[in-house]
Amino acid sequence: MEIKLKDTFFAPRQAMNIAVTIPSAIKRCEETGRIDAFKLQWKPGSTLPQPHVFWDSDVAKVMEGMAYTAASSPEIAQRLDKLVDLVISAQQKDGYLNTHFTVTETDKRWRELFYKHELYCAGHLTEAAVAHYNATGDKKFLNAIRRYCDYICDVFGPDGKQGYPGHEEIELALVKLYRATGDEKYLRQAKLFIDRRGTSPNYFVTEEKQPEIVLPMFQAHKPVREQTKAVGHAVRALYLYSGMADVAEATGDQELLAACERLFDDLAQNKMFITGGVGSRQIGECIGGAGEQVSERSYAESCAAMALVLFTSRMLKITGKSKYADVMERALYNCAISGLSLSGDRFFYANLHACHRGMECQGHVATERQKWYECSCCPTSYCRFLPQLGNFCFRTGADYLAIDIPAAARIKGDNYEVEIASNYPYSGKVTVRVVRGGNFELKVRIPGWCDKYTLPTTGNLKEAYWTLKKDFADGESFDFDFKMPVETVFTSIPSLASQAALCRGPLVYCVELPLTSEISPFELILTPESTFETFPMDELVPGCVGIRFTAKRLRKPDTLYSTQCARLTDISAVAIPYAFWQNREKTEMTIFMPFYQVR
Amino acid sequence: MEIKLKDTFFAPRQAMNIAVTIPSAIKRCEETGRIDAFKLQWKPGSTLPQPHVFWDSDVAKVMEGMAYTAASSPEIAQRLDKLVDLVISAQQKDGYLNTHFTVTETDKRWRELFYKHELYCAGHLTEAAVAHYNATGDKKFLNAIRRYCDYICDVFGPDGKQGYPGHEEIELALVKLYRATGDEKYLRQAKLFIDRRGTSPNYFVTEEKQPEIVLPMFQAHKPVREQTKAVGHAVRALYLYSGMADVAEATGDQELLAACERLFDDLAQNKMFITGGVGSRQIGECIGGAGEQVSERSYAESCAAMALVLFTSRMLKITGKSKYADVMERALYNCAISGLSLSGDRFFYANLHACHRGMECQGHVATERQKWYECSCCPTSYCRFLPQLGNFCFRTGADYLAIDIPAAARIKGDNYEVEIASNYPYSGKVTVRVVRGGNFELKVRIPGWCDKYTLPTTGNLKEAYWTLKKDFADGESFDFDFKMPVETVFTSIPSLASQAALCRGPLVYCVELPLTSEISPFELILTPESTFETFPMDELVPGCVGIRFTAKRLRKPDTLYSTQCARLTDISAVAIPYAFWQNREKTEMTIFMPFYQVR
Repeated sequence: MEIKLKDTFFAPRQAMNIAVTIPSAIKRCEETGRIDAFKLQWKPGSTLPQPHVFWDSDVAKVMEGMAYTAASSPEIAQRLDKLVDLVISAQQKDGYLNTHFTVTETDKRWRELFYKHELYCAGHLTEAAVAHYNATGDKKFLNAIRRYCDYICDVFGPDGKQGYPGHEEIELALVKLYRATGDEKYLRQAKLFIDRRGTSPNYFVTEEKQPEIVLPMFQAHKPVREQTKAVGHAVRALYLYSGMADVAEATGDQELLAACERLFDDLAQNKMFITGGVGSRQIGECIGGAGEQVSERSYAESCAAMALVLFTSRMLKITGKSKYADVMERALYNCAISGLSLSGDRFFYANLHACHRGMECQGHVATERQKWYECSCCPTSYCRFLPQLGNFCFRTGADYLAIDIPAAARIKGDNYEVEIASNYPYSGKVTVRVVRGGNFELKVRIPGWCDKYTLPTTGNLKEAYWTLKKDFADGESFDFDFKMPVETVFTSIPSLASQAALCRGPLVYCVELPLTSEISPFELILTPESTFETFPMDELVPGCVGIRFTAKRLRKPDTLYSTQCARLTDISAVAIPYAFWQNREKTEMTIFMPFYQVR
Repeated sequence: MEIKLKDTFFAPRQAMNIAVTIPSAIKRCEETGRIDAFKLQWKPGSTLPQPHVFWDSDVAKVMEGMAYTAASSPEIAQRLDKLVDLVISAQQKDGYLNTHFTVTETDKRWRELFYKHELYCAGHLTEAAVAHYNATGDKKFLNAIRRYCDYICDVFGPDGKQGYPGHEEIELALVKLYRATGDEKYLRQAKLFIDRRGTSPNYFVTEEKQPEIVLPMFQAHKPVREQTKAVGHAVRALYLYSGMADVAEATGDQELLAACERLFDDLAQNKMFITGGVGSRQIGECIGGAGEQVSERSYAESCAAMALVLFTSRMLKITGKSKYADVMERALYNCAISGLSLSGDRFFYANLHACHRGMECQGHVATERQKWYECSCCPTSYCRFLPQLGNFCFRTGADYLAIDIPAAARIKGDNYEVEIASNYPYSGKVTVRVVRGGNFELKVRIPGWCDKYTLPTTGNLKEAYWTLKKDFADGESFDFDFKMPVETVFTSIPSLASQAALCRGPLVYCVELPLTSEISPFELILTPESTFETFPMDELVPGCVGIRFTAKRLRKPDTLYSTQCARLTDISAVAIPYAFWQNREKTEMTIFMPFYQVR
């Protein structure tokens, strides 16, 4: 099965990943010592940089991305091969493979799971090894990682240490390893890690002597099957839920799947930003409570939005329910991409949902894209995330093709070849052409944001999918038109009462104005009389559509507090897709604007 | 000079302080081991609680409050005397007096100033000792603390360690000690601490080896005289500025005073909450940037609002400028009191400016008042803050009386006795009666919030003060009427664009509704047609005035995001003074509401 994206939104990012994002991530990993760390030369007193607990994961994620793209780039393929050899060279006799604990804190192996990212790094190495094997057919990395995971299964097996990761990730990685090798041991270990989590007495509290630990932060406050609220560290949570979904799928565990659905529902119905961002709290990088999505204080880590895509794409695949596609799409076109600059080499770690000139930066929250972060999970996540975009848009099998997101693409299977022509996400007009026919089921999702649409006269509507199963002839084509008006979107989030965001299709728009502008985006007021028109903004991004709208302007008071309120004046303004903000000069930005519900 | 408050806002809090707040603080200090810590019995392996770096300050602040109130309570006076003996018993031969560093980290004395609160605790002990001496005339505590401060002056004198506190406080305390003893050494040391701060090479970076330290957090990024922006930890900043003001006053240092004014202006014009709260960021308890006052994420530590009163009352005293009185009054009637329950024994550490049912609590941010905090600076600050309220309302001297805040009170001086009759802050009608006449200058401030007022026909208006200097006869009285309509107050804070708060006189109002209410405060919309009427709310607080107002209700959407917007309906609602929120059942609360500027 081969998926080739040809759209203007995702495809250029994939090309940029190969040309810029991956090479620059390799460079940063070299410069910071992350790659040389695998030479294991650091010693106390050494002038070399000391390997950090999460460094291996950064290199592993870049390698995973390199594996996905190796077929299109001989340079990347060669470089990856060398990196694989280097990483393998760091493996210990017993199979252990972790730069930090091999050269520093050598007495701490498996002893501070709650915070030290040890199993997390193992998980990312495993994902990289599986990707490398799938891409090359070469088993050298896979076999090395199997040895490592065999060792992990020994240490943490049913009769071993009863621990589980403080930062989830290895659960889903072990399921990948099981799928790549067919060895059920890895699946059993993934299930063990998941089912142990949060049981009493708590491993972190008792074995690792952390009486003060805030267990919900680690999703370890109760067994995962009993959890109903999405809580704690956002990326940890979403990696866990993804692993739970994988185990549920592989074992047919309906109870575990039901827990996944409950946790998704809580997240999607109460705690998600309009952009698919997750994480309302900077402290602890936490999901936060229901309705706590404060625009100016959004954390909404890029990794968390990408992880939401990982989780929802799994749930979509397992259940076929369109609610997962709706949230996946929301994240894909907005917060999961907004963290990456159009140039491919600058990043937001946290994604603000409102930004003004007075805001101070703190920690991972920046008002301008950064070249790198010391904690570089987000930049390296993009390396592996972008190549998978096609897999999120389409579910493919020998006898079916589900088009969840109708981005322009060519999909070549054993039994069919299909071409999707569209300007999605900027237009809802979509033509699906069967280039090479065959007997299969074709499904096209009616997006959750879409109220009005026209479908081909053939086919059936099954829930949110237009469905047609038949022996397709070569050249048959099907036209869809998902009407894409500009919508004003309201929210139950208390801090955004009587405010509205402009959305069009799957895109969330924002207003950004340069710091030099006399007008602030925070002075714009929407009313029921506001009108909207779309126009091409190719100079921002080829293919991009902007929104010009009429609004009122309410000048902000001259003083911090004032009994004087300015008079409204008429104004027109431009909104651009949120995903593209802060790619020009430094700006102020807002997604939501006050909306006067008065006629 | 004797000031006796008789109003319904402050005076009951003072009585409650003696009856409840101080006794309960003593109890908590006992229960937690803070008082027994002065017995110095803790040892490694001991089952006793280990003295924390800031514990001494908690006990010292309660003792300071006890000293201020000892005259009205024999129990407090007796208890204080015993506490003084206990504290003195912990003093070392060299004068050193700190429970933490005497029994734990004994090798760290004066070595981690940047973070370990050592000089901060010394400052609070000094303030307590001066208060004890002033209250009792007994020098035992004062002399012990002099020995401690003499030792500090030796260690940190001109030729000694070039360090300064990581948490400011001792600067202002040393000026108090100078005033109590007349020994200029203490003033010189205060000035030294202030002028060393932020000089290069930086002491924390080089001497204490903190290359990663965020210096603005500690106001140590540049010399204080060159600082123009109020930055960093809010309480640290305001204690520093207070000490700077004290030194400027005592030495006539105009450059230092100018720095204080610049820092005040930045804070008051850009970074203060409408309630006089300071601190927009929970991380680092920081002031935050200009316009970062996000209601739902306000930190606005109670101690910071009290510290703003300490700073502005000093600046007012030195300069006589009413802008300081305006901000002082704003803090006094709102955020500096909101942290204390009406029952006197429950506290907010952080003061939220909006609170809804979905909000999670984290760290010091609570949605319900707490009995105590492990870091208990705020509860203990109230013990010493409340007795000083009269000193913030009035500036008194042998030949002058400035009424900055016309709370009902009796002020007895050597040359005059004055009675202020008012229902301030609920009414602007004020009568100042000279009970016992004499030759002095009487000044009455025209509050900054007041646009319309009537003054006595005699007297002159000098800037914002009605002024009359003469030989007053017994019984002369002067009537003032500061009109106090309900005002809608707007702000330039971006997150509050097109929103308004209801204020009346110095009081900021909020809407709070119980969690059981079908209506949420976040559904209320103000319009230019909104009408306001005041009514007595004695059942909430005797004397209290509520505001009943008409508004629109905009039901929040049923789902997190929705293209559907409800229709406005008419509603009437009640606002109460912000200072009194969350004293009944658990509620949702907001100060600002969307305001539709449409006619």
